[in-house]
Amino acid sequence: MTNQSLGKVIPNKYFSQNNAKDVWSLTNEAAAAAAKNSKNSGREMINMGQGFFSYSPPHFAISDVQQALEIPLANQYSPTRGRPNLIKALADLYTPLYGQQLSADNITVHTGANEAIFSCLMGLLNKGDEVIVFEPFFDQYISNIELAGGVVRYVPINPPRELDDRVTRGTEWEIDWDILEKTINSRTKCVIINTPHNPIGKVFTREELLRLGKICVDNNIVIISDEVYEHLYFSDEFPRIATLSPEIGQLTFAVGSAGKTFAATGWRIGWTVSLNKELLNYVAKAHTRICFSSPSPFQEAIAHALPEAQKIDYFETMRQEYIQKFKIFTAVFDELNMPYTVAEGSYFICVNFSKVKIPEDYVFPQELQEKAKDFRISYWLMNELGVVAIPPTEFYIKEHEKAAENLLRFAVCKDDEFLHKAVDRLRLLKDYL
Amino acid sequence: MTNQSLGKVIPNKYFSQNNAKDVWSLTNEAAAAAAKNSKNSGREMINMGQGFFSYSPPHFAISDVQQALEIPLANQYSPTRGRPNLIKALADLYTPLYGQQLSADNITVHTGANEAIFSCLMGLLNKGDEVIVFEPFFDQYISNIELAGGVVRYVPINPPRELDDRVTRGTEWEIDWDILEKTINSRTKCVIINTPHNPIGKVFTREELLRLGKICVDNNIVIISDEVYEHLYFSDEFPRIATLSPEIGQLTFAVGSAGKTFAATGWRIGWTVSLNKELLNYVAKAHTRICFSSPSPFQEAIAHALPEAQKIDYFETMRQEYIQKFKIFTAVFDELNMPYTVAEGSYFICVNFSKVKIPEDYVFPQELQEKAKDFRISYWLMNELGVVAIPPTEFYIKEHEKAAENLLRFAVCKDDEFLHKAVDRLRLLKDYL
Repeated sequence: MTNQSLGKVIPNKYFSQNNAKDVWSLTNEAAAAAAKNSKNSGREMINMGQGFFSYSPPHFAISDVQQALEIPLANQYSPTRGRPNLIKALADLYTPLYGQQLSADNITVHTGANEAIFSCLMGLLNKGDEVIVFEPFFDQYISNIELAGGVVRYVPINPPRELDDRVTRGTEWEIDWDILEKTINSRTKCVIINTPHNPIGKVFTREELLRLGKICVDNNIVIISDEVYEHLYFSDEFPRIATLSPEIGQLTFAVGSAGKTFAATGWRIGWTVSLNKELLNYVAKAHTRICFSSPSPFQEAIAHALPEAQKIDYFETMRQEYIQKFKIFTAVFDELNMPYTVAEGSYFICVNFSKVKIPEDYVFPQELQEKAKDFRISYWLMNELGVVAIPPTEFYIKEHEKAAENLLRFAVCKDDEFLHKAVDRLRLLKDYL
Repeated sequence: MTNQSLGKVIPNKYFSQNNAKDVWSLTNEAAAAAAKNSKNSGREMINMGQGFFSYSPPHFAISDVQQALEIPLANQYSPTRGRPNLIKALADLYTPLYGQQLSADNITVHTGANEAIFSCLMGLLNKGDEVIVFEPFFDQYISNIELAGGVVRYVPINPPRELDDRVTRGTEWEIDWDILEKTINSRTKCVIINTPHNPIGKVFTREELLRLGKICVDNNIVIISDEVYEHLYFSDEFPRIATLSPEIGQLTFAVGSAGKTFAATGWRIGWTVSLNKELLNYVAKAHTRICFSSPSPFQEAIAHALPEAQKIDYFETMRQEYIQKFKIFTAVFDELNMPYTVAEGSYFICVNFSKVKIPEDYVFPQELQEKAKDFRISYWLMNELGVVAIPPTEFYIKEHEKAAENLLRFAVCKDDEFLHKAVDRLRLLKDYL
């Protein structure tokens, strides 16, 4: 067949119809432009937007990579499920945390936590299966679900009523259990939970997770538990939903990240842990077809870095450092009497800007007119104070974005000196209160 | 809703219905078992199955990674389309090869070539679009197409008639143009071509590519050109389909691989080059949602290694080394008068075993009974001679596998000493001729 008139190539409609700029590109581009305005001339931009670390991974981990590079086969393909050394190190790490002996079959390695979640969904969903995400949600969940053929259903995590008035705690943000129960139906296949939570900083309590887990067991719903901030909790404990009952464990796929664990978001190593070996095979199969295998020298290095980290109490040291970082950073909001949600975990904090008075005649670009108020606060803040933060309504569907319209999300995964500079700059907010 | 009787979780049927073991797992497991038999006791297994390098990446490339690790931000997320340094190095590399100035918009970086091809398909296909692959095909193409919602259509590359009788050349393997024309219809969205070709070792000629390109232009068909072995051609030239006419260029997405280029298959860096900037955006969008971003230290290192490689003529040196490797390896088959297809490119060679007489009462495992003859030759070879090679009928659909049933694929990406050992071992075949 020859037909010259078939016309243009039509790309995947999923992408051509979802053409809105994502919050990361939008913020990065706006920040680059803001850096050039007269207000910011001669001063450093304080970028606390995207959650990348301003500092290097720990020396021992970098040195582990440098050594791995010297091993010929550690530069070649790894087994698709992960290097045996890394799988063993992960089994050793999680065995005490799960309270039972994990084996190689309980673990599969991925190319970053995003690809882990995508592989879980691709391995387990059939077309039309529904997946529940809680608002606010990490934006990649949505495309991960939809590209795997799933349908997203949204359930809010309701903010505390006095969000605009006082400092609140993550525990005061609560899953809307009524809406959750109403949303579940025979097509509900999966729920994605994120704890410690980005952007709220909430660590879900044992009671909350048990309640959710029981609902999932009753309705045969798979739980994808995004636990990438698992070592960054400042509450008394970090409960893992997989460990709360054998039945919940059989439905749970917990995702971890070397990038978050070792301040190395560019290394692209994540993993899935599950007590359900049979279903985990499908996650591994999906991974093989998506990425084939994951970067070998980093896998080899992390296999060594994990036991070293445990030996030198690296995770506890990191927690203490982050408690200090939040202390440095929140001081300015306490000083200005601006409310925020105390971070119980993760490296994010949501600060409430309802008391900040932006001049009524301030000129915003046209593309921000249709966006929620936090997009305009973010724009104003980067242009007037040179501080970049993420508008969290991006993590809500349109109908629910009111809940977060006065908030901005700041990432504190920066060195302390930088945080002190951020505080000095944010002190300028006092002229707008 | 509460319903305790929903029963078991049903994983993605795509994976549960395609449950046959892939050729890589099958061969690796069989090789591990063969290594333990009495014939192989006390001798090294000669594994020439999977295409991983037995040697390290070049010193300059490893040293580039070690330096990248020292840059704090080179350990963090890269821009989703790739690090500007790497994109610039790739534009510089391909500009003379394309005979026109390429810019950053012509390139997007991926997490390995497999993810590049998956991103091309995910970015461009809509559900039900047909994709033509040529047999023999690289097995990952099939799942890449199907997971992106496409339908695979197969067109054979016909082997020369005298395949069993004499040494042949890649140019004698020819696309079945009649079947190609008959296969094209209004749903045909894309064709995947691989040159230099795995496993044939064929380098498609300018004439063949022009003929294919014109058919694609006439029918508005996207061309994904898998060029991961682009630096390993031993013919006079390596023609790139994208450069053969402006119209073909607008439809072509060429995929390259740092793993193949720098003997580092475990680094997981690939890229897509296209003259069609608009459509390439969709490939980049798909990549963002699949892997988010690619390993940063390797990107930074390859940005440095590419210009260094050009400066020291690394690619030409590598070609000469591979000409030598094939010379070492094929000597034994010339000696035994066993036919093969001369490799014009890639690091694979298909050797014809039709003259090898396997004892009629040789006992094969049950799972090989339904497989083509080459699976049994491969099993026999690893168990009797301790040499591992891949049965290439895995790269055919059942109806067409006769074409390759006497062949085994050997990977010569091994150091010369190893190749000499392989030759010594394969000399034992003379007792079976």
